[in-house]
Amino acid sequence: MAFVAASTGKPVKAVLFDVFGTVVDWRTGVAAAVRRFADSHGLELDADAFADAWRARYVPGMRRVSSGERPFVLLDVLHRENLDGVLADLGVDAGRFGPAALDELNRAWHFLPPWPDSVAGIAALKRNYIVGPLSNGNTSLLLDMAKVGGLAWDLILGSDVTKAYKPTMEAYLRPAALLGLEPGEIMLAAAHESDLAAARTAGLAAAFISRPLEQGPGVPGAGVAAQSWDLAVSSITELADQLGPRLGGCVFLTTIVGRCR
Amino acid sequence: MAFVAASTGKPVKAVLFDVFGTVVDWRTGVAAAVRRFADSHGLELDADAFADAWRARYVPGMRRVSSGERPFVLLDVLHRENLDGVLADLGVDAGRFGPAALDELNRAWHFLPPWPDSVAGIAALKRNYIVGPLSNGNTSLLLDMAKVGGLAWDLILGSDVTKAYKPTMEAYLRPAALLGLEPGEIMLAAAHESDLAAARTAGLAAAFISRPLEQGPGVPGAGVAAQSWDLAVSSITELADQLGPRLGGCVFLTTIVGRCR
Repeated sequence: MAFVAASTGKPVKAVLFDVFGTVVDWRTGVAAAVRRFADSHGLELDADAFADAWRARYVPGMRRVSSGERPFVLLDVLHRENLDGVLADLGVDAGRFGPAALDELNRAWHFLPPWPDSVAGIAALKRNYIVGPLSNGNTSLLLDMAKVGGLAWDLILGSDVTKAYKPTMEAYLRPAALLGLEPGEIMLAAAHESDLAAARTAGLAAAFISRPLEQGPGVPGAGVAAQSWDLAVSSITELADQLGPRLGGCVFLTTIVGRCR
Repeated sequence: MAFVAASTGKPVKAVLFDVFGTVVDWRTGVAAAVRRFADSHGLELDADAFADAWRARYVPGMRRVSSGERPFVLLDVLHRENLDGVLADLGVDAGRFGPAALDELNRAWHFLPPWPDSVAGIAALKRNYIVGPLSNGNTSLLLDMAKVGGLAWDLILGSDVTKAYKPTMEAYLRPAALLGLEPGEIMLAAAHESDLAAARTAGLAAAFISRPLEQGPGVPGAGVAAQSWDLAVSSITELADQLGPRLGGCVFLTTIVGRCR
C-alpha cells in the first residue's frame, strides 16, 4: 500500500518540499512588492527584471556561507544584503529610503503566493504523509508564508534550525534525523534538478515538479526535467494522487497506539 | 484588538504549549500502554502506579542533562532509561522482553491522548495566533502525537532543536528567536506553575491551564494555581475565547503583503 521509491527501495513516510519556485511563485510575488515599492517612492524600474536580479544573487550569497567564507546568517539577512546589491547595480542610492522601508520590501520573501495547486496538494498529502518544507528559508519566513498562504505543514524546520543551506548534505540529513526517519523514507519534491540531485546523493527519494512559469513566461525548456526521478509531475495535487494513501484508517487514532510510521 | 499580556505589556502573537499534562493526558495514555504490555507478557502490576513511577523519573533524568552532568540526549532515550529503572525497581528482569518490546512500550509517550478540549482549542487559536508545542519532547515524538491526535500545530520545534530542556532559559528563548519574535510576544500555556515561572523569568507571557486530573482523580489541590498569571483557564477552548481574535481578516491573504505579525 505504501509508495516505495525506486531509488531508495524504501516506503516514503514524509514528503518535504523545496519552497521558492516549487510551492510558491517567488517571481510574481517579489515583482508585485517591488512595483508597489517603486510606485510609492517615485522610482522608474522594471519590476520583473528587479526580481530576477534579486534572485540571481541568492545562490552566490548562500555559497559564501556553505563554503565557510562567513558564519551562518539568516536567509533574511542574505536577502537584505542582496537587495542593497541590486539597488547599487541600478545606481539607486539606498540611503534615500531608510532601512525600515527596505526591511519592509525585503519581507516580500515571507509572503509569496502559492502556485494554484499548492494549498490543496499539501492538504491532500498531509492526510497520509508527513509534510513540511525543506527550504533555505529561515523558520520565521516559512511560518509567515504558511500562515498567510494557507500551507498546512505538519512542521517547519527552517535553515536556521539545520544551520545549513542546500545543497550541502547536512541540509537534507539533519531534518531526517529530527523526524526520526532514515533519509530514504523521505521524498524531496522540487522544481530544480540540482536540488533533487543533492537530495539523491544524501539518500532521499526525489520527485520533480514541473513549474514552467517559475522564471516567467516564454523561457525555452522551462519545466522540463533532464534526468529521470522517482516521480515527475506537473503539480502537487498530481503528486498526492501518484503517492496515494500510505496506510488506511490509521490517522487520528487517539485511544490505541497509532501505527502511522 | 490584540491581547496584551499584563506581565509583558506586549501583544501576544504566538501561543506555545507545554504538552505532557497540558495538552495530552500522559497518565491515562501511558497506563493503557503498560496494561497492554503487562497483559501480553503475563505480568501482574498496577499500571497507574507504573505510569506514575515512570513519570517520577522524568525531571531527574532531564536535570542530569541540564546540569551538564551528561551531554544532550533525546527525551526518547531518557524515557527508555527510565523504563529500565522502573522495571528494576519492581524487580522485573527486563532481559525477558527483548529490546524491541521495550522500545515499543517506550513509544507510548509518542501517542498520548489529547484532553477533550485540546484539538478544538488549538484549531481555534490557530486562526489568529501562531500555535506550537514548547515541550521537552523531541521533534519526532511531538510529530507523532500531533499526527495521530489531530493537533494542528503551525510548527514543531522539539527539545532536540533547541538542545535544551525546560526550565533552562534557552528552552524558552531559542524558540522565540526561531519565530523571529521577542519573548514577550509569546505566551506559554501550561498546567505546571514551575514551567510558567521559568517562562516568565525568560520574558514570556504565561497562561495557567487547570488540569485537575493530570495525576489521576482525587488529588487534593490539583488544578489550582497558587500564583497569579496573565490568564488562568480550565481548557484550551477557554484560552482561545479569552485571547480572542488578534487581527481581523488578515489570515490567508495571498495577493497582497500580509500583516499578520
